[in-house]
Amino acid sequence: MQYILGIDIGGTNLVIGAVTEDGSRVVGHVTEPTGVPEGPDAVINRIIAMARGVIAETHRQDSEATILGVGIGSPGPLNRKTGVVIFTPNLRWTNMPVRDRIGTALELPSSLDNDANCAMLGEHWVGAAVGAKNAVCYTLGTGIGGGIIVGGKLVHGASDAAGELGHVTIDVNGRRCGCGNYGCLEAYASGPAIARRAVEAIEAGAVTAMTAISGGDPARITAQTVFEASAMGDGLANELVLDTARYLGVGIANMLNTLNPEVVVICGGVTRAGDRLFEPLRREIARRAFKPAVEACRVVPGALEGTAGVVGAARAWLDEHA
Amino acid sequence: MQYILGIDIGGTNLVIGAVTEDGSRVVGHVTEPTGVPEGPDAVINRIIAMARGVIAETHRQDSEATILGVGIGSPGPLNRKTGVVIFTPNLRWTNMPVRDRIGTALELPSSLDNDANCAMLGEHWVGAAVGAKNAVCYTLGTGIGGGIIVGGKLVHGASDAAGELGHVTIDVNGRRCGCGNYGCLEAYASGPAIARRAVEAIEAGAVTAMTAISGGDPARITAQTVFEASAMGDGLANELVLDTARYLGVGIANMLNTLNPEVVVICGGVTRAGDRLFEPLRREIARRAFKPAVEACRVVPGALEGTAGVVGAARAWLDEHA
Repeated sequence: MQYILGIDIGGTNLVIGAVTEDGSRVVGHVTEPTGVPEGPDAVINRIIAMARGVIAETHRQDSEATILGVGIGSPGPLNRKTGVVIFTPNLRWTNMPVRDRIGTALELPSSLDNDANCAMLGEHWVGAAVGAKNAVCYTLGTGIGGGIIVGGKLVHGASDAAGELGHVTIDVNGRRCGCGNYGCLEAYASGPAIARRAVEAIEAGAVTAMTAISGGDPARITAQTVFEASAMGDGLANELVLDTARYLGVGIANMLNTLNPEVVVICGGVTRAGDRLFEPLRREIARRAFKPAVEACRVVPGALEGTAGVVGAARAWLDEHA
Repeated sequence: MQYILGIDIGGTNLVIGAVTEDGSRVVGHVTEPTGVPEGPDAVINRIIAMARGVIAETHRQDSEATILGVGIGSPGPLNRKTGVVIFTPNLRWTNMPVRDRIGTALELPSSLDNDANCAMLGEHWVGAAVGAKNAVCYTLGTGIGGGIIVGGKLVHGASDAAGELGHVTIDVNGRRCGCGNYGCLEAYASGPAIARRAVEAIEAGAVTAMTAISGGDPARITAQTVFEASAMGDGLANELVLDTARYLGVGIANMLNTLNPEVVVICGGVTRAGDRLFEPLRREIARRAFKPAVEACRVVPGALEGTAGVVGAARAWLDEHA
């Protein structure tokens, strides 16, 4: 069987697997902490070592395995043509030739695309957006990323900068965002932003189960804490989940009125909150976007939890090489 | 020579002309007030009478003229397949079969698309966005419309609702918009919104040349008044123009981070303000959008003042029939 190695580089974790040529299976799938504090070279070396492990495991499971190439998904901005990641604060990379460093080490033809673009490609290939002519994907985590499909094809834009859906302003007078802009969606609805809103409320005197869950240390509160407490019926946590749905709803409603997609896919751990998040989210979108756009669009969790980026990185490689 | 009749239906004016097959010339170009208060049928009858006049004038100027068909641009939402305008508050139309009523009366094959989509098509065909793979158009007037080109093609979306760029939220807690949503770009930067901000400031006691220009009657202040007063160096008017640039800048920066286009075209009377508007607008975009997206994008006034909609309606007809 033929495989493409998919590498999903995140600020927190690295995920690597060998994806079958039809996208139906991921073999030898491994996850490790990225280890950003160890420095750029250590991260690249870890990726290469993990990739070699995945290749060995794939050959072990399938004696006739051929690895065609390696597709890499990384936070951007990046240049697909040169394979260089221009700058990523989360990884502390500047002008990192990640595509060639990994491709050369593995002696495989390689490709590079944005990590959220890869998630969109994966979900479009074999996940929640199969067959969609127009689709939008949001990846919710430490940051908020996005990918856009129009006419069945990924939109890269003039300089590979399309789909930065965490960095659209939803409040003209809003919170400063890590990107330098003010009022970005990411400043309200990313994991750290959700946690920060919880801490702010507790510091202002709110009584909540989150204080106990975090052992009395607000610094240990994460988005996960908020969703857990909300599942237990905690009042403040419920409010924070509703606020999150509201902010996300604004960003997604804007996309409905802009691109009128058939499906919006939400990827990331927060989707485990299920209807607790999706019901108010869909309500907010319906309240804000035009009716024909709302009626034409499904808003759903991703179908490839944990592997959308790996599968999509392989798909991106195929789109470049096949 | 062969021509396509282009009809641009606006809430204020109707514009009709015969467009040469290559888009290079508009013959017999006429403009008349739409006359919405006279009722839906009167508007349709006026369009048909004007169109007959344009056809006669075209034959007078070119004895070998052939009119191939009629392309119609109208505010939406609408259904391109059935040729029906579903609902337009500005025209007071509900489920109006505008394509077939006009096509049948003129005995010509006809097409229907959104008016701002037509402006984008016109500018892409022979105007400010020629050759662009990815482009975005804003039409600024009584409302704010939009059109989007991705991969060289107009984006219609799943239900012809794409490109409603006036109805993206720029302030999650913002002003109520005519569309029912809150904080839409249109509620801040359309002509009436600019005028309303002027009136609010005057009612709050601001001293400005606009009071004299409008003969002391705030109801007579329009966006045009604001831009005139700004050209005269009026302080309040300057502030209002800067605020307008800021609001527009937020909407456009969001599009840069979303679609990373090569060109953003601004159409409508306000573009006559020139650098007084475009300089602060470009500054605001640069402040908010990612650098690779800003560097890749020109932000320019439309090149087809007054006829982009007519030319683009003809182009939309060609795209459907040629």
